[in-house]
Amino acid sequence: MDTQKLLASRTAVMEVSAIREILKVTAQPGMISLAGGLPAPDSFPIDILQDLCREVLADWGPTALQYSPTEGFGPLREALADLLARRKVPVVAEDILVASGSQGVLDALGMVLIAKGDAVAVEAPTYLGALQAFNPYEPKYVRIAMDDGGVMPEALEAVLRDTPVKFIYLVPTFQNPTGRTLSLGRRKAIARLLQRYDALLVEDDPYRDLRYQGSSLPPIKSLAPDHVAYIGTLSKIFAPGLRIGFCAVPKTLRSWLVMAKQGIDLHTSTFNQALAARYISGGHLMQHLPRVLKIYRPRQQAMLEALARHFPAQYQWTRPEGGMFLWVTGPRGMDMEYVYHRAVARKVAFVPGKFFFTDPGEGRETLRLNFSTVDPPTIERGIAILGEVLAESVGVKSN
Amino acid sequence: MDTQKLLASRTAVMEVSAIREILKVTAQPGMISLAGGLPAPDSFPIDILQDLCREVLADWGPTALQYSPTEGFGPLREALADLLARRKVPVVAEDILVASGSQGVLDALGMVLIAKGDAVAVEAPTYLGALQAFNPYEPKYVRIAMDDGGVMPEALEAVLRDTPVKFIYLVPTFQNPTGRTLSLGRRKAIARLLQRYDALLVEDDPYRDLRYQGSSLPPIKSLAPDHVAYIGTLSKIFAPGLRIGFCAVPKTLRSWLVMAKQGIDLHTSTFNQALAARYISGGHLMQHLPRVLKIYRPRQQAMLEALARHFPAQYQWTRPEGGMFLWVTGPRGMDMEYVYHRAVARKVAFVPGKFFFTDPGEGRETLRLNFSTVDPPTIERGIAILGEVLAESVGVKSN
Repeated sequence: MDTQKLLASRTAVMEVSAIREILKVTAQPGMISLAGGLPAPDSFPIDILQDLCREVLADWGPTALQYSPTEGFGPLREALADLLARRKVPVVAEDILVASGSQGVLDALGMVLIAKGDAVAVEAPTYLGALQAFNPYEPKYVRIAMDDGGVMPEALEAVLRDTPVKFIYLVPTFQNPTGRTLSLGRRKAIARLLQRYDALLVEDDPYRDLRYQGSSLPPIKSLAPDHVAYIGTLSKIFAPGLRIGFCAVPKTLRSWLVMAKQGIDLHTSTFNQALAARYISGGHLMQHLPRVLKIYRPRQQAMLEALARHFPAQYQWTRPEGGMFLWVTGPRGMDMEYVYHRAVARKVAFVPGKFFFTDPGEGRETLRLNFSTVDPPTIERGIAILGEVLAESVGVKSN
Repeated sequence: MDTQKLLASRTAVMEVSAIREILKVTAQPGMISLAGGLPAPDSFPIDILQDLCREVLADWGPTALQYSPTEGFGPLREALADLLARRKVPVVAEDILVASGSQGVLDALGMVLIAKGDAVAVEAPTYLGALQAFNPYEPKYVRIAMDDGGVMPEALEAVLRDTPVKFIYLVPTFQNPTGRTLSLGRRKAIARLLQRYDALLVEDDPYRDLRYQGSSLPPIKSLAPDHVAYIGTLSKIFAPGLRIGFCAVPKTLRSWLVMAKQGIDLHTSTFNQALAARYISGGHLMQHLPRVLKIYRPRQQAMLEALARHFPAQYQWTRPEGGMFLWVTGPRGMDMEYVYHRAVARKVAFVPGKFFFTDPGEGRETLRLNFSTVDPPTIERGIAILGEVLAESVGVKSN
């Protein structure tokens, strides 16, 4: 039958992630992928997981395989409350909701908060996965301008003054796609704005533990606890394939998220939650994290050095203290989608930056580079090729 | 802040599952729960899982812990295609989508198909979890009348003639909450109706392998493949805590479900999918299933015998050949919510049947009994007490 005729109108604003299509290209043999945002396979604690599986099944038995509360598995909520306390977010276990990846939190927030036509304020550029979670609920997006230090508080204030927004969505630390991090000053200024305008911030914080230098900054949640829905994930510091995300949100919102999640997936895998609980409470997370940083730090270093060596003079890029991404800005008029196709022909993939903007036409001269997936020599080779392609593409103006 | 003011209008039709509230009661010490729908803890293959965890981590390594395709983990899609072939649903691996429980399929279907005010036809009574998945998309429900043989094809035809429905939702085998199963004749009649009216059926089939007698019947999907979105789950035959559901749907619908799922949770746990793939392809499912049936068969038998012994004369109940539930109908005027409170005071819990109806006021004299969770002596004790409460409640009319 023709099921097309049955589709709900919201499908008109849903679209396949451009990155997903690009990632299909990166699966081609011999391709150097600087495109995705995958953790390095050798960053996974497989040896520890072998032990944890045995422990969880022996100690919790059937409980680890049974249906469990929508809010989350008790021991994991306790472990996460401890984790958040170390991030200066003072919560108890009951304040934490576990979800199926941070994506699961974003979807539930969209379901509960966004009515068709509601305004949601996002960074320009912003994280694509959040847009994909929100789109089915048919918001309109309002862009908040950024500079090298991330979102500008005065730009946020201009938005809050002019537009009644349902919420603001930010990735304040090692942002995807730019790697930019908000300073403590900006965090405080944003916290004050939230309170002054009684506005809700969705603070997505997946990368904070991937810090290679400098010292960590408090989440905005810790500065304006009542005005922030804070989202975390174990995908970058344990294993994304287990799909464990979590959130700490203002109380009335929490009960609505639980109700939404009941309908969405009932609860997140009990077994994976039990593994995650033991991973954190058994001290494995803190023991293993340095191994992860040891893999990523030299990769980021290698990429920064290769960029300096191989990229044409008019190019600029971010130098984040952590995370997985660098953001490159080329001269005005460059069309990075054109460059992308030429680079792929030479077996190097990246993501054209325009896909991360909500306003069409913005960011054509930008690109996102990922350094977590491939090793330093491969990064050097990939950036060298990309530098050549960029040099050859000078003068090719976008159409 | 007052997040209540931020809620989207759809939250007005979302509500906490009544059953969930009842299940909190069943957690009280000493309570005999005939209320939930949980698999028996001793039905879980813990010993097999210990081996599978080791195997999956040794053989697939980082792949089992990494991000994976939204459609599902390749080896699991292949194993599920084989499983469906045994159910007479001829599909290849590419036709299968894996989801986070069958709940995940129901939510994605709702997102893609239901626009506010669309009609969805459901059995009366129907599965509560499906309503919870659909409600946020704001459908209106059209009831399809049932008799002891399940949905009546003529009642379905009357609905299809009168109302343009987006889809029909049925649990044709060992239905939750009634245990009723559609005969082959009715399945064929419904398949013809789907084709004649070019209507889409969502066929939810979680219980089919829990068959204690008689022989299995083909899914309606096998009779009208192009008009049926078929949903399966491993929750009743492996472990619900792993949250593995799946579906086989008409092709155009499939790509929309993938797009929806990208935003909802990106993908289902890779690790759990790998465990499930090995559980099926390694032959463990088929080896373990008789152990599960051996637990449930005597429990159902015990409940049927206890009902005959202890329930007052005017009561009737279903005698399903499988599944997890029996459905009891008392004399007109009985109020099973009143009985529920009296029974809970005597430490026996069940679910009043009215919660499974979409039309208010329907089913007040009905109740659902679950026999999978407690052992035969406890069932005998629980039903004896319930019989006493029912006898004492005669003449108490509903208000």
